[in-house]
Amino acid sequence: MDNLPKKITIIGVGLIGGSIALGLKMHLASKITIVGLCSRIERTQKAKELGIIDEVIDLHAQPLGLRLVTLIILATPVEETIKLLKFLSKIKFKNCLIIDVGSTKEFVINAAKQLLGPNISFIGTHPMAGSDSSGFENADPFLFQNKPWIICPAENIIKEQLKLVEALIKILGAKKMIMRDAKHDQFTAFASHLSLVISSILISTVAKQRQWRKIAQIASTGFRDTTRLASHNPRMKTDIVLSNKENLIKALNATRIEIDRFIEVLHSGNTDNLFNYFNQTKIIRDNWLSTYFN
Amino acid sequence: MDNLPKKITIIGVGLIGGSIALGLKMHLASKITIVGLCSRIERTQKAKELGIIDEVIDLHAQPLGLRLVTLIILATPVEETIKLLKFLSKIKFKNCLIIDVGSTKEFVINAAKQLLGPNISFIGTHPMAGSDSSGFENADPFLFQNKPWIICPAENIIKEQLKLVEALIKILGAKKMIMRDAKHDQFTAFASHLSLVISSILISTVAKQRQWRKIAQIASTGFRDTTRLASHNPRMKTDIVLSNKENLIKALNATRIEIDRFIEVLHSGNTDNLFNYFNQTKIIRDNWLSTYFN
Repeated sequence: MDNLPKKITIIGVGLIGGSIALGLKMHLASKITIVGLCSRIERTQKAKELGIIDEVIDLHAQPLGLRLVTLIILATPVEETIKLLKFLSKIKFKNCLIIDVGSTKEFVINAAKQLLGPNISFIGTHPMAGSDSSGFENADPFLFQNKPWIICPAENIIKEQLKLVEALIKILGAKKMIMRDAKHDQFTAFASHLSLVISSILISTVAKQRQWRKIAQIASTGFRDTTRLASHNPRMKTDIVLSNKENLIKALNATRIEIDRFIEVLHSGNTDNLFNYFNQTKIIRDNWLSTYFN
Repeated sequence: MDNLPKKITIIGVGLIGGSIALGLKMHLASKITIVGLCSRIERTQKAKELGIIDEVIDLHAQPLGLRLVTLIILATPVEETIKLLKFLSKIKFKNCLIIDVGSTKEFVINAAKQLLGPNISFIGTHPMAGSDSSGFENADPFLFQNKPWIICPAENIIKEQLKLVEALIKILGAKKMIMRDAKHDQFTAFASHLSLVISSILISTVAKQRQWRKIAQIASTGFRDTTRLASHNPRMKTDIVLSNKENLIKALNATRIEIDRFIEVLHSGNTDNLFNYFNQTKIIRDNWLSTYFN
């Protein structure tokens, strides 16, 4: 992987940033140096102690040092990414590529277009991998193994820079997918953000019942798994849904309509129609599962 | 457990019936004989070969032999349970207790009241345990360990018979809960049946999108887990939702209203309100999880 720079800066060394760091180190060992920054300086120090990053960078104390940086990975929540883009736009880089790995793309890519000057390129990407846990303590060099990693290149992308991103994704064991940012956001609204929200809506619906305390006693593994994503980091969820608002509202409206349709089928009490509904959805899910999760 | 009979008849030796059989054998060994019946004679023979049951019973060939049976556990889908109650109501039992372990209670208990004569008692029960897998091949003697097992006793219940059911539940390691049948069905609509249905509705909503093939490629573990119950046995799901129709429609309407409420919050774009929504639902779920799943 000759085209990867010897030094990579990761801003936001959490689960994703930390897993990128560990994955790169696993394959490239001493050939790569990871410069990193977490949300707080104590966290950054700890990430260094644990060997997840090699060097600590303090953006505000070392803005001059940044000038020679050639690759920055932003692994922060969208809101933070925008702030960082504003900050980085003021640095007089010689030649820098910034990529992000956030859950929504159109908003960030548009901001990058507006904010960044001629010596900074930006490529929005999104690895489709995650975990219930957060923080670099849970980082895993295999997190991206065989998972899709979406790249949303701008029209004027520099070919060499795209190749660099593709090399990075390959090293981490992920499968690249090229997609327009608007499409990415439409698809992830259904593929991922809808589940994030429905899990919380389900908890809220059930816990609002006057008899929640009794219901809580008898709810079992089905309820536990269907609502798993309700335990995700609420700050991150807020960030995701706000930056993909319109698509997510469409997905939620589609769900509402589907609930109405199901209520009609149930109301009619037609055994065959109900069986077909459950049977069809089972077939679709089982096929999906065997295709993508072998 | 002196009050358990030496011979117990289980009709419907699948995951639940098989797990009851294995659990009883694990604790009582040769002190108990399990007489069993599956959906088909070949299945029953196989359950015997595997040692899950000790004796095979053929209801239609041995109706006379049934007269002396004192405890029958019906571990069949609700629709089948009703058919069996009709069949059993014609047997001149000396003194028999029938219990069921189905997912809905009011419908079955009312049917039992109408169908069964004076020498047959019926107690509706529901172990809150299950698994993605079905069939006695997946039976597990520990399936009920520390799980709630609901008993819905009729008003005129015979105290000795209730004690017998409680002894059975205790042997299997479950925690008994006494509840009225109507309450049981209200609570399980929210605790369990709603998740069963929402998982299928979510699959259906997403798979209906014109771009489902692309979405399928990027959907990940979150979508997989939120929709896990969509892969459950469609026959069983049909049976459950039809026998708890009214309560489930209420739960689905409550979910619809909650989706509308969430869309409003999202539409307003208020970061604090969204954060609070996700934070509150996370706290509720995490508390629930740590109380009941340690």
